[in-house]
Amino acid sequence: MALIERIFPICRSITGNGVRETLAILRNHIPLEISEVPSGTKVFDWTIPPEWNIRAAYIARPDGTRVVDFAVNNLHIVQYSRAVDAIMPLAELRPHLHSLPDQPDWIPYRTSYYSENWGFCLTHRLLSTLPDGPYRVFIDSDLAPGHLSYGEVLIPGKSDDTILFSCHICHPSLANDNLSGIAVATMLAHHVRTLRPRYSYRFLFIPGTIGSLTWLARNEDKVGRIVSGLVLSNLGDAGGMTYKQSRRGDAAIDRIVAHVLRHDEVPHRIMPFVPYGYDERQYCSPGFDLPIGCLMRSPSGEYPEYHSSADNLFLLHSDSLAHSLAVLKRIIAVIEGDAVYCSRNPKGEPQLGRRGLYGAIGGQRTAGYDQMALLWVLNLADGQNSLLETAERAGLPFSTIRAAADALAAADLLDPMLLDR
Amino acid sequence: MALIERIFPICRSITGNGVRETLAILRNHIPLEISEVPSGTKVFDWTIPPEWNIRAAYIARPDGTRVVDFAVNNLHIVQYSRAVDAIMPLAELRPHLHSLPDQPDWIPYRTSYYSENWGFCLTHRLLSTLPDGPYRVFIDSDLAPGHLSYGEVLIPGKSDDTILFSCHICHPSLANDNLSGIAVATMLAHHVRTLRPRYSYRFLFIPGTIGSLTWLARNEDKVGRIVSGLVLSNLGDAGGMTYKQSRRGDAAIDRIVAHVLRHDEVPHRIMPFVPYGYDERQYCSPGFDLPIGCLMRSPSGEYPEYHSSADNLFLLHSDSLAHSLAVLKRIIAVIEGDAVYCSRNPKGEPQLGRRGLYGAIGGQRTAGYDQMALLWVLNLADGQNSLLETAERAGLPFSTIRAAADALAAADLLDPMLLDR
Amino acid sequence: MALIERIFPICRSITGNGVRETLAILRNHIPLEISEVPSGTKVFDWTIPPEWNIRAAYIARPDGTRVVDFAVNNLHIVQYSRAVDAIMPLAELRPHLHSLPDQPDWIPYRTSYYSENWGFCLTHRLLSTLPDGPYRVFIDSDLAPGHLSYGEVLIPGKSDDTILFSCHICHPSLANDNLSGIAVATMLAHHVRTLRPRYSYRFLFIPGTIGSLTWLARNEDKVGRIVSGLVLSNLGDAGGMTYKQSRRGDAAIDRIVAHVLRHDEVPHRIMPFVPYGYDERQYCSPGFDLPIGCLMRSPSGEYPEYHSSADNLFLLHSDSLAHSLAVLKRIIAVIEGDAVYCSRNPKGEPQLGRRGLYGAIGGQRTAGYDQMALLWVLNLADGQNSLLETAERAGLPFSTIRAAADALAAADLLDPMLLDR
Repeated sequence: MALIERIFPICRSITGNGVRETLAILRNHIPLEISEVPSGTKVFDWTIPPEWNIRAAYIARPDGTRVVDFAVNNLHIVQYSRAVDAIMPLAELRPHLHSLPDQPDWIPYRTSYYSENWGFCLTHRLLSTLPDGPYRVFIDSDLAPGHLSYGEVLIPGKSDDTILFSCHICHPSLANDNLSGIAVATMLAHHVRTLRPRYSYRFLFIPGTIGSLTWLARNEDKVGRIVSGLVLSNLGDAGGMTYKQSRRGDAAIDRIVAHVLRHDEVPHRIMPFVPYGYDERQYCSPGFDLPIGCLMRSPSGEYPEYHSSADNLFLLHSDSLAHSLAVLKRIIAVIEGDAVYCSRNPKGEPQLGRRGLYGAIGGQRTAGYDQMALLWVLNLADGQNSLLETAERAGLPFSTIRAAADALAAADLLDPMLLDR
Repeated sequence: MALIERIFPICRSITGNGVRETLAILRNHIPLEISEVPSGTKVFDWTIPPEWNIRAAYIARPDGTRVVDFAVNNLHIVQYSRAVDAIMPLAELRPHLHSLPDQPDWIPYRTSYYSENWGFCLTHRLLSTLPDGPYRVFIDSDLAPGHLSYGEVLIPGKSDDTILFSCHICHPSLANDNLSGIAVATMLAHHVRTLRPRYSYRFLFIPGTIGSLTWLARNEDKVGRIVSGLVLSNLGDAGGMTYKQSRRGDAAIDRIVAHVLRHDEVPHRIMPFVPYGYDERQYCSPGFDLPIGCLMRSPSGEYPEYHSSADNLFLLHSDSLAHSLAVLKRIIAVIEGDAVYCSRNPKGEPQLGRRGLYGAIGGQRTAGYDQMALLWVLNLADGQNSLLETAERAGLPFSTIRAAADALAAADLLDPMLLDR
Repeated sequence: MALIERIFPICRSITGNGVRETLAILRNHIPLEISEVPSGTKVFDWTIPPEWNIRAAYIARPDGTRVVDFAVNNLHIVQYSRAVDAIMPLAELRPHLHSLPDQPDWIPYRTSYYSENWGFCLTHRLLSTLPDGPYRVFIDSDLAPGHLSYGEVLIPGKSDDTILFSCHICHPSLANDNLSGIAVATMLAHHVRTLRPRYSYRFLFIPGTIGSLTWLARNEDKVGRIVSGLVLSNLGDAGGMTYKQSRRGDAAIDRIVAHVLRHDEVPHRIMPFVPYGYDERQYCSPGFDLPIGCLMRSPSGEYPEYHSSADNLFLLHSDSLAHSLAVLKRIIAVIEGDAVYCSRNPKGEPQLGRRGLYGAIGGQRTAGYDQMALLWVLNLADGQNSLLETAERAGLPFSTIRAAADALAAADLLDPMLLDR
């Protein structure tokens, strides 16, 4: 939450100094490697646009009173607005003004990255009271050759097979979308660095769409090693968990997240893939079709504050952020802990009682919880079923099955198999 | 409706002049080719029966008053009744009389094609008031070597792969079963002739069972080119749509009809195949197992008027006939319009905005309807998914997806693949 | 019921003279072959334990009054209790006493086969009134090298492919669990001996766990011929039927039992496999993975009287026993009667009317029940679908489909195929 409060005021966009400043702050927490890619670089069907930086923007009355001022809220400016200095009546200004008639007290968030334009966003309440003018319109911005900036952390594991986490860093002062994703990803990367992971982990902090396209274009050789991944966004609101499946729908990550959420205390929803949303659109384009889903609390576009000034720090709950992080740690625990075993005593059950793994007095009504986990692991330890599949068939959480497998392995009852995920 | 009114009074059966007269009238609308197959011809396990023609039939009192008269309603005679001229008491006549005790004002429809017999059908109300007799029974009919008649239209397409539509023409004055099917098939053939279709289309107007068996036996070389088909019947009543699946249950036609009905405004029902009903019984026999289903409104046997004099012109609605025809045109639009594409920009999304296919100002809450269709087509344009599969996954009507594919192809973003259906 | 009443009083355990006495009584009904396997024999991960025989056991007051006496109810002794003759206060005795606080009038059933111990079971009502003592504790039992006893019957069929029925005989005076299973298995074996079966049938009467392990270890060469099987237990109570699937979940036996229960008049439940329960745990261990499920009425552990003195003769209903036997006979009728046919007239329907298999007067609303069965058999007689699959698709009981196939085969319309189950 402290990290989010620190970076909330910065005016980020898909390029510019706001992104650089944000990445520099994240670097205090994790060893971000920062890339700068020149404007004009071709990335697949796209071209990296000019860099946009803005210093000031306002609409003022003839007496100099500022009606709308970027200094007050950086959502007031349509992102990528070109420089303007002009006097005009309301009639001429009006097409450049954006508001939310249904939410008259909120400022909308608008962009015009690839079509040169300018504009202001303001509350509908203010807009509807504006006199005819004239107004001075002033935007002090640069739209010039520069760079697109993004950050990444690679935490190498025993295998080059890689788990990708990706979050977009291009939104200005919007809290849930997506400072929540940025903060949770930062803390998760911090956590993974404390493990000696089996898989390698890559965390991307990138501008939406053009950022993921740029990373993909510059790292096509690495794409084939991505075995699972998640786009992280909207992770701080009070809602339950939402998982949007990968395009494949039955990838390992889809099964893992569904399992973890099914055994979580918080309500959840699984949504099928649709080719709209965040950077999963690019990762799941047909030429890549990566096994990458999207983890959210309230889904983008489905909560009223989405893409408006109401998506501010008041919308976030530190409990929600902490819970989102805990869910992600559990997801990683499954990714890291899943395995396939062969029972060393596949014919009949091994005698667990002799090894202290079974109640001594028989005839009681029910096997204990742990005892069932032991029996499930042994029964499915045929070199075919993974522990996750065992947990699913047993209806038990992965952690219980993993613990049972550990106990059985310690008693020399299981042989590990190579897991080919 | 005018066509149905014209052919309603004719006494059709599985052979005879009533069938010829009906086919001659249909020939005014579509270029029917008419076949005549001699009685005694073997068709698989069956033999084409003698031709039946009837001129008059009645039951009269001694004073000449006609109690039951074929001239009043051709349902009064059991089809294929042999000639009779005899005087008998009610006790002797009674086993030859058929009525519907549950529907005392309706005349049932009965046949005895393959077992020589005679009989009359009458209302139960009349039957229950008949005095003991005697009665003069008079049937002036021929049951003699002749021909079985049927009609067909072939509309050649670019491919010899053929779509088959089949309707039975053997019922006398029954409107929904099956003048409705005959009329809709005629109008549909008329429509297909206005297309330059990809597939070839064959329309069969045949007597039930023996007619489809005869066509199959004489055209075994053509059967392998039938890639989809529908039996058409009961298409004029006020009920919703009913689709009875092919024996395969997952043939292209099963998926296509289910898709069209799901996006139709009228309620519908999908029924699994059962080996009872109309000529799909023959088309779906194990030696052929053709991908042919049956499209109806109220299914045969499930509406009270079925196979009785109450299945008359009052049961039909011109709106229902028109809607049935519209659904069939939509089915043909899917058959003709389905295709598989490869995106020319499979890595990431192509930049739609640059091509005028995407809104210029970003940040708004929802993508438009058409925009989602564009994204779905691009996302699934991997050479694996057909447009129908894309429409199903997107939950959008085929026509919307087809239109999106046209827009993308026009923007040079798609390569067509050969569709191997 | 008479058999159950006869063997109810005997004190059985996993070894000992009670088992021998029980098998000797069963031998009056079926030609049991009895095996005796020495204590100390290794069976997979297990060792056959010493043989246990008990003559007397009681807890007495100083004046000789017996507070708890094995002679009154053989559940009073913890099975495999070693010999004891000692005087002790309640405090010392207490850890050796077992009761059911929730069911204060019932004596629990407890065992300690593989951990040397001793103990008594008694009602909670009695336990809670016991004064401090002292008590004389007397157990006159042997725990010494001997044998494990089990019985089996093999009824050879035309094929060596074998159907296995297994029931546990190790419980003392418990009626539903499992004198019901023993009695039903005995009567079923009796029935199978009256057939000339296609398959071979093996019935096992064995002590739980160690008995099935012993049989498996001594008959590994025969295990591969087991094509279906059922563990039989809890078959006499008033509940509906319960089928616990094999580990595979989709084995032939799973489909057959589900079909028979679906068309049975008694409510039923299908439970997925879990690695807990009866000897299916051993048969379905990963090294064997046999297609063996478990047929019960009320499942083990789910009725209150389970594993207590309330599971006595009053819990059983002769109607339930008879119905369980009838269901098993129907299961065997499917196993024996299933077959795959090819229609001799696969192109179109054969003309059933000519062969007297179809109603003569057409046009009636519905085909008769039997007529639908004939059409289903013919339609699916393509060498691919078994009669069971035909019955499932038709929604008709197997017996109806089997009868239809017999009628069609008699009319020379079907060729049998080799059934490869």
